Amino acid sequence: MLIVQKYGGTSVGTVERIEAVADRVLRTLEQGHQAVLVVSAMGHTTDELVRLAHAIERTPDEREYDALLSTGEQVSASLVAMALQKRGIKARSFTGWQAGIETEPVHGAARMVKIDAQVLRQAIDDGVVPVITGFQGIAEGSITTLGRGGSDTTAVAVAAVLEADACEIYTDVTGVFTTDPRVVKSAHKLAEISYDEMLELANLGAQVLHPRAVENAKQYHVRLVVRSSFAEEEGTWVVETPAGLEQQNVVTGVAFEREVARIALIGVPINRHGLAMVFSTLATRGINVDVIVQSVVQTSEVDVSFTVKEEDSDRALSIMREMKAELEYRDLVCETGLAKVSIVGAGMISNPGVAAQMFGELAQADVPVKMVSTSEIKVSCIIPATQIEMAVQHLHKAFLE
Amino acid sequence: MLIVQKYGGTSVGTVERIEAVADRVLRTLEQGHQAVLVVSAMGHTTDELVRLAHAIERTPDEREYDALLSTGEQVSASLVAMALQKRGIKARSFTGWQAGIETEPVHGAARMVKIDAQVLRQAIDDGVVPVITGFQGIAEGSITTLGRGGSDTTAVAVAAVLEADACEIYTDVTGVFTTDPRVVKSAHKLAEISYDEMLELANLGAQVLHPRAVENAKQYHVRLVVRSSFAEEEGTWVVETPAGLEQQNVVTGVAFEREVARIALIGVPINRHGLAMVFSTLATRGINVDVIVQSVVQTSEVDVSFTVKEEDSDRALSIMREMKAELEYRDLVCETGLAKVSIVGAGMISNPGVAAQMFGELAQADVPVKMVSTSEIKVSCIIPATQIEMAVQHLHKAFLE
Repeated sequence: MLIVQKYGGTSVGTVERIEAVADRVLRTLEQGHQAVLVVSAMGHTTDELVRLAHAIERTPDEREYDALLSTGEQVSASLVAMALQKRGIKARSFTGWQAGIETEPVHGAARMVKIDAQVLRQAIDDGVVPVITGFQGIAEGSITTLGRGGSDTTAVAVAAVLEADACEIYTDVTGVFTTDPRVVKSAHKLAEISYDEMLELANLGAQVLHPRAVENAKQYHVRLVVRSSFAEEEGTWVVETPAGLEQQNVVTGVAFEREVARIALIGVPINRHGLAMVFSTLATRGINVDVIVQSVVQTSEVDVSFTVKEEDSDRALSIMREMKAELEYRDLVCETGLAKVSIVGAGMISNPGVAAQMFGELAQADVPVKMVSTSEIKVSCIIPATQIEMAVQHLHKAFLE
Repeated sequence: MLIVQKYGGTSVGTVERIEAVADRVLRTLEQGHQAVLVVSAMGHTTDELVRLAHAIERTPDEREYDALLSTGEQVSASLVAMALQKRGIKARSFTGWQAGIETEPVHGAARMVKIDAQVLRQAIDDGVVPVITGFQGIAEGSITTLGRGGSDTTAVAVAAVLEADACEIYTDVTGVFTTDPRVVKSAHKLAEISYDEMLELANLGAQVLHPRAVENAKQYHVRLVVRSSFAEEEGTWVVETPAGLEQQNVVTGVAFEREVARIALIGVPINRHGLAMVFSTLATRGINVDVIVQSVVQTSEVDVSFTVKEEDSDRALSIMREMKAELEYRDLVCETGLAKVSIVGAGMISNPGVAAQMFGELAQADVPVKMVSTSEIKVSCIIPATQIEMAVQHLHKAFLE
């Protein structure tokens, strides 16, 4: 089998961890498989580079910022290649540009446009294990990055273009849990989860897999497994349809996200172009908008509120101020100190009333719900950050124990 | 004027130093000049990367080692670009491959083959200050490095292809001294020095300028000045013919180098191809050979000894062992713990007897001379490392005070 293995920051965090990665790759090869690696930057390297950049400039140029951050993966890819070579394995590091990973000409959160599989295939045919830097690519001769967690996306994209048999995501947790075990002691690991559920969980801040990675895995039918590089136990497979779907719980997991900010535009004249522009502008500037709620239209005005990560709220606010003349809103409000809790489960589709049950549980626990967002397989509520742990524990107990 | 400024590792060693570099560039631009920067890795970054590599593998793969080390300059180039942008200066970092710096397909000590000036010229024409990573290039899609100190070489090459008016080498010393002031208190700074003298001094371990940089500067008539990035005082100009040549001392400087090893091949059958192969093989493997001495041919055998850096002596020895069958030498000897002391001066050409005077001074100081090497403007002696400081002090006093 051709297996793409992605090793995250903690999995290559030290020389010892890199040696352990090389041992694991050796075992994979000894089992008769071919391996292609995608690696993140070592442990806190990226944070250290971010610190350096911000010591110089609060809002550094995005092109230079990407060029800077991309060095982290270059270091770990070279070191992992050396560790493989030490074990007699032919290996070769590839940066984003060397692997022919082209992205949009956007910095900080670029999407991949194309991977030139030929150079990687050639290496594999030559018996070489390619060690690819995750998280980065090239556009118009400049280095671009895919945003944090982008190494997962690189791994899935590489697995897709190489038509790999599996894509193993190695991280510091043993799989996908019903919720964060640090918050709920009785949380348990799932053997399987569907792409759709994983997508909701990833989007909802479970931090195990990057949502774009899951999206791409679903689209290109990449068999994905999340495992720990620190242990030998089986991980969680992310598949189209988990076996035993009929018997499973209605709710698969409880996800949550801290540091959420809500921005509200009050009294916006009804004008479809204006509102579309708000979200396209935020997207162009690289700000991810999560929940969007628009008030019911009763007059010629609407109120629109949306959530962003707390760290993006200043930038989002100033973009909204720039757009005041075009949008003609009456008032602009920003509320920080929020969090989001969500229940996810493919079983919800055939089980109405789950949302109502969730609101009931939160009300019973005296948690005020500020915004609600639903899909066929999840319900999310924006609540005060101070109450998030209690809410998660309460919902896990109600739905999963 | 178009000025290429090269900033060494200590000049960009901290965020504060990077800010100081940006201030200096701003002053350069305010004086109406155009600037192109070449930067080294921050302070001890390269050492830290070397440490990581060696923690994994004693003799890491050279391609991966280059890929690893090259990240150091990429970090400093991005940070310097950010610091310039903070001052309202348009700036853009260029890695070796982005600047189109092509080298031979050799790792560890590659020579530049070509610089595509167009991309840099375009940037300059657009009013952008290019910030180029020193020390690195690209060959056959892989990152190569020019060897330590290679950033000087990059700066001179960039100055040559851009036909710059001057190439300023910023370092942590204020210029070129008659000898190392840490060893001889009365050492004094030279206002000017000829390329040839500088070349000898650089080759002889004065560590101010990389010899290849001086060689290229001489060949392409690049006006070179060595200055301190920590002070405003004038540095040392390296020129074709220093003004006041007639009045100058016969000896311009005393240079020395520690950690020298001597390797001797005893009883090598006379065979020109064999000996040529020794040095071409060492060169191919990236080992610099310095002094070479061959015994006078009296029988059908010769003894050949040569010096290498102490750190290269193990590799050089094992290469000699590999070649034993071809070379048919009788014995192989390696002596470490040596050093080299040299006197340099263009005035020697018209002053015979300087070498004899040097040997006399060393004999008087009881310093045994193990090997001798001379050129028209220098005399070098290999002596025990334990006596190097005393020898330098003695020779400086005799020739320069």
